Amino acid sequence: MTLLVVGSVAFDSVQTPFGKKEKVLGGSANFFSMAASLLTNVQLVGVVGEDFPREHVEFLKGRNIDVSGLEHVPGKTFHWSGKYDFNLNEAHTLDTQLNVFATFSPKLPEAFKKPDHLFLANIDPVLQLNVLEQVQRPKLVALDTMNYWISGKREALLKVLKHVDLLFVNDAEARQLSGEHNVVKAGSAIRKMGPKTVIIKRGEYGALMLEQGHAFYSPAYPLEDVFDPTGAGDTFAGGVMGSLDRWGGLTPETARQSMVVGAVLASYVVEDFSFDRIRSVTLQDVQKRYADLRGFTDFKDLPTED
Amino acid sequence: MTLLVVGSVAFDSVQTPFGKKEKVLGGSANFFSMAASLLTNVQLVGVVGEDFPREHVEFLKGRNIDVSGLEHVPGKTFHWSGKYDFNLNEAHTLDTQLNVFATFSPKLPEAFKKPDHLFLANIDPVLQLNVLEQVQRPKLVALDTMNYWISGKREALLKVLKHVDLLFVNDAEARQLSGEHNVVKAGSAIRKMGPKTVIIKRGEYGALMLEQGHAFYSPAYPLEDVFDPTGAGDTFAGGVMGSLDRWGGLTPETARQSMVVGAVLASYVVEDFSFDRIRSVTLQDVQKRYADLRGFTDFKDLPTED
Repeated sequence: MTLLVVGSVAFDSVQTPFGKKEKVLGGSANFFSMAASLLTNVQLVGVVGEDFPREHVEFLKGRNIDVSGLEHVPGKTFHWSGKYDFNLNEAHTLDTQLNVFATFSPKLPEAFKKPDHLFLANIDPVLQLNVLEQVQRPKLVALDTMNYWISGKREALLKVLKHVDLLFVNDAEARQLSGEHNVVKAGSAIRKMGPKTVIIKRGEYGALMLEQGHAFYSPAYPLEDVFDPTGAGDTFAGGVMGSLDRWGGLTPETARQSMVVGAVLASYVVEDFSFDRIRSVTLQDVQKRYADLRGFTDFKDLPTED
Repeated sequence: MTLLVVGSVAFDSVQTPFGKKEKVLGGSANFFSMAASLLTNVQLVGVVGEDFPREHVEFLKGRNIDVSGLEHVPGKTFHWSGKYDFNLNEAHTLDTQLNVFATFSPKLPEAFKKPDHLFLANIDPVLQLNVLEQVQRPKLVALDTMNYWISGKREALLKVLKHVDLLFVNDAEARQLSGEHNVVKAGSAIRKMGPKTVIIKRGEYGALMLEQGHAFYSPAYPLEDVFDPTGAGDTFAGGVMGSLDRWGGLTPETARQSMVVGAVLASYVVEDFSFDRIRSVTLQDVQKRYADLRGFTDFKDLPTED
C-alpha cells in the first residue's frame, strides 16, 4: 500500500543541555517519512528553497521515499531554531523563518492522488483541506496540528477535522482544542469534531489512544539518555502510520501494535540530533525494542482465590 | 501474613476545583491501611489527639485494621490543609499543624514486632530508623519519603535507606534524592543507596518500577473525573504492599500485579474526598478495573513477515 505525507521540510538549529547543532535536516514531513519508510512506501509532498542541498534529497530517495512531490522554488528553505532545557518535554522556539514555506501551496503529482493512507502533518489547516480536495478518499486520513492553528485558524481546523479519522495531538493541544482539562474528556469532545480515534502524545510518559468505549496506553521506551527531542512526535506518527499501511489498515489490534512501533522509532530519533541516530536503525532494531516494551508492560491476571 | 505500617493519622482540609471539605479523615497510614486491608491483615502505628473521634477509630477497626498501635495522647491531632488547582498532580500546602505528631515516637506493641512486610510511611527518617530497630527483620521493608526530608534530614534518610528493599518516590523526589534528571538514571543512583527496587510514582501517568536490568510500567486508570488526589500515593503503596503480603512476597510477577492493584485502588480514592469513595470498594471492584487495565495496555507481537 502507499502512504502520503504533506508537511514541512526544513532546516533545524537546535540547542539542548547536551550540545547544539546548526542548520541540520528537520521538518515534520522528513521525520515522519524517515520513520514510515522503514515500514512502507512513502510519498512526500513539501517545498524547499535553492539552499536545500542535493545530499539531503539523495538521502531521502535512498530511504525509498518518493520525493517527486518535493517542490523546489526560488528562495530559502524553512528554518526553525529552538532550544530545550532539562525538561525535554517542551521546546522553546527561538526563531522561525518560514521563507519558501510561507507561500507553500501543496500540489500533488498525479501518482500521489490515490494514497491508501494520508498524513496531514502540522501545517495551516487551509492547506490541509486543500490536500484533501486533491485526493481520492484514502482508507484513513490522519492529521497533526498545534496551538498556533488551534487558536489562530480554529474555523478552518474544525472544517478539516470533519474529514479526519485519526488525530495526533499532545496533552496541551487536546486541552486547548476541546476546552476540557481531563484528557479522557478532551478525547470525547474531540471525537465529536470528526476523528473517531484520538492519539494523545505525552512525551516521556507515552501516548494514549482514545476511541468510543476503548482506550490503549502506549508506553514510551525508558531511555537513560534523551539527547534531542526534536521530531519525536512526527517520528512517532510515522511509525504509527507506516505500520497501519504495512499491516493492512486500522484494526483494534494493529492500532495498538502501530503505536508501540511509533514509540520505538521515537525512542531512537531522540538519542541524537536530527537523523543522526535513526538513519542507521533497521527493522530488526525496531523489533528488539518492541519486544523490550512488551516486557516492560506485560502483567498477568490476578492470582485466583480459594 | 501481616503487614505493618507506621505513619501519620490526620485530619485533612482540602480544596479542589470541584469542592472543599474541612477536617476529614486523612494521613498516610490511614490511606495506606484502607487500601491494604482489602487484601491482607494490617497493623497500624500512629498517634492521635483527644479530638480524634471514636467513629474514625471504629471505622478503621471495621476494616480489619489492628489499631492497638494507635496511640491516644493529650492535645490535638495532626491537621493538614491543602489545595489543588486544575493540575491535580501537585498539592499546594496551605497549613500544617503537627500538633501531637510533633513529638511522635513510634512504640510498637509486642504483637507488631514480627511483621512479614513493613511500610515506613512518609515521616522523619529518624523515626523510620527507630521503627526498624524495634522489629525483627521483615521479609521486605518499604519506605516513602518527601522533599522536606530529602533536603532537611538527608543523612538520616541515607542511613535508613541502607536497610530498605523498596522505595516509593515521585519523579521530583527521585530527581532531588539522586541529583539525576533522567528518571532511569535516578533509579540507578538510588539503587546504590540501598533499595533494590525503586517505584517512581507519576500521578496520572502511572508508575515505573526500576530494578537491576528490569523495568515495569504500571498504567494509571484513565478517569474522566478526578475529584481529590489527596492520599493517592499512599493508597497506591497500600495496594502494592497489601498485594505482596497477600500473594507471598516480592517476585517479578507479583511485583507487576501488585503495582496494577495499587493503581486501581488509587483510581478509586481520587474519585471523591477523603475515604468517601474507597470505603465502599470491594475486591470484586478491584478485579474489574484490573481487568480493564489489562485491556488498556495489552498488545500482541508484531505480525511475522515473509
